[in-house]
Amino acid sequence: MVRTVGYLGPQGTYCEEAVLHLYGKNDVCLQPFTGIDDAIRAVGSGEVDESIVPVENSLEGSVNITLDTMAHDVNLYITKEIVLPVKHNLLTKKGSEEIAVIVSHPQALAQCRKTLGNLYPKAKLKPVESTAAAARIVATSDGLCAAVGSLRAGEFNGLTVAASNIQDSASNSTRFIGLQRQPIVCAPGNCKTTLVCQIHGEHPGSLYNLLGEFAQRQVNLMRIESRPARTGLGMYIFFLDIEGSATESNIAAAVSAIEEKCLWYKNLGSYPVYHVAK
Amino acid sequence: MVRTVGYLGPQGTYCEEAVLHLYGKNDVCLQPFTGIDDAIRAVGSGEVDESIVPVENSLEGSVNITLDTMAHDVNLYITKEIVLPVKHNLLTKKGSEEIAVIVSHPQALAQCRKTLGNLYPKAKLKPVESTAAAARIVATSDGLCAAVGSLRAGEFNGLTVAASNIQDSASNSTRFIGLQRQPIVCAPGNCKTTLVCQIHGEHPGSLYNLLGEFAQRQVNLMRIESRPARTGLGMYIFFLDIEGSATESNIAAAVSAIEEKCLWYKNLGSYPVYHVAK
Repeated sequence: MVRTVGYLGPQGTYCEEAVLHLYGKNDVCLQPFTGIDDAIRAVGSGEVDESIVPVENSLEGSVNITLDTMAHDVNLYITKEIVLPVKHNLLTKKGSEEIAVIVSHPQALAQCRKTLGNLYPKAKLKPVESTAAAARIVATSDGLCAAVGSLRAGEFNGLTVAASNIQDSASNSTRFIGLQRQPIVCAPGNCKTTLVCQIHGEHPGSLYNLLGEFAQRQVNLMRIESRPARTGLGMYIFFLDIEGSATESNIAAAVSAIEEKCLWYKNLGSYPVYHVAK
Repeated sequence: MVRTVGYLGPQGTYCEEAVLHLYGKNDVCLQPFTGIDDAIRAVGSGEVDESIVPVENSLEGSVNITLDTMAHDVNLYITKEIVLPVKHNLLTKKGSEEIAVIVSHPQALAQCRKTLGNLYPKAKLKPVESTAAAARIVATSDGLCAAVGSLRAGEFNGLTVAASNIQDSASNSTRFIGLQRQPIVCAPGNCKTTLVCQIHGEHPGSLYNLLGEFAQRQVNLMRIESRPARTGLGMYIFFLDIEGSATESNIAAAVSAIEEKCLWYKNLGSYPVYHVAK
């Protein structure tokens, strides 16, 4: 049976680009979803074998819907991560000269605000649901509007690249994760382990004591992200990304100690990290 | 001179409701802004004396644009916080019977998704820029659409309350902060201090060591929020909310120690916290 891989669609999104770095187009059956939560839930329900969704951008931060859905709505495991450099392009209809409106996903517009302000000081920026949808809108427009999106979105909609690499910051990249119903066994080396937990947070030192379980074992905490526990203001759950695999003894020991100390806890798995060259 | 207070508009937003709990309508000159960043920058430029903006919701988490603008774009101080229970209402035109479309801010729709699904299983949810804008749209509509918003937005637009308290979770509340150009001196008791900082984060234990400055002085860390440092993926700044005022000796000592240990640091001030009764 051909493996089915869901992703945040429509066709031409950066998420699709990430998927195509992981899988040959003809090796898997790709299934676009209109929402990140839909793509994630489809793994839980068995509709797809895996879904690839964005989890963090270097400028905009965490993708909250990804974190919240993983914590509250499904029981899935992270089985891979892929880091994709984001290169935005200004896409227009062939023959367009004047640009009155520039459409894109709000985050893409935000990431190009300064460059667009210099190139088209009079153009109005208009947010739409995705970079791929923006390209589609331009393809069916009167030619006075342009989209910010990927080369692939441009090709897919028969658009011209009016300007490339228009992002304000050169260090713009997005992390995508693959989610599956079963965890993988991950060999040490260029990998991460992600935990999500809630602690007794009323007393001074609660988080400090938790992080001590990592520090005393020389385990490197790469990222900590708090999200609402949804039980009231001031109550949080923490996503903890640590360097290494739970097959390593110091990491396994730290993970067990964290589990002991928490009110609520999920081990989202250990997984390899891939980087797409800039 | 009458004090000028900016807020996230238009009229009828929950942010305006928060402002009106702090100030009498005739005591200050209220100035609505269409964007949170605009409202914050207007304090920096001297256009207004203070702005009140949302910073965190109990279900949706941090308001990133507020944190990022405070960290990167202005040098302002938090001078107060007000916690407002969020009560959503379904607002319709008088005489409306059928509801085909429900409009609101995406967060408000998300906070009522289950209740709306039960009440109007066939209605389509459509995101718009604010709850107040949603009420305005309904007021000028054909009567087949409804808005999720505050009682004030309903009154302001001459709408009827078709259903009240439609939020899925009873514990839904939003924190708003007041920002000014100068810090205040805050007496101890029901107050907070907020720091934002970047640490040398490459080695195991960096964050642990930082938090130790609080723990060893019995200072309670109420909240930690990471945001991208904007210098690359995996580089973060941390917002730290601690219980108490910098006029207290253990807090002043912890704050100094944190400043010493950080690559970059801002003390956003000590300020009183007000709660609006549920």
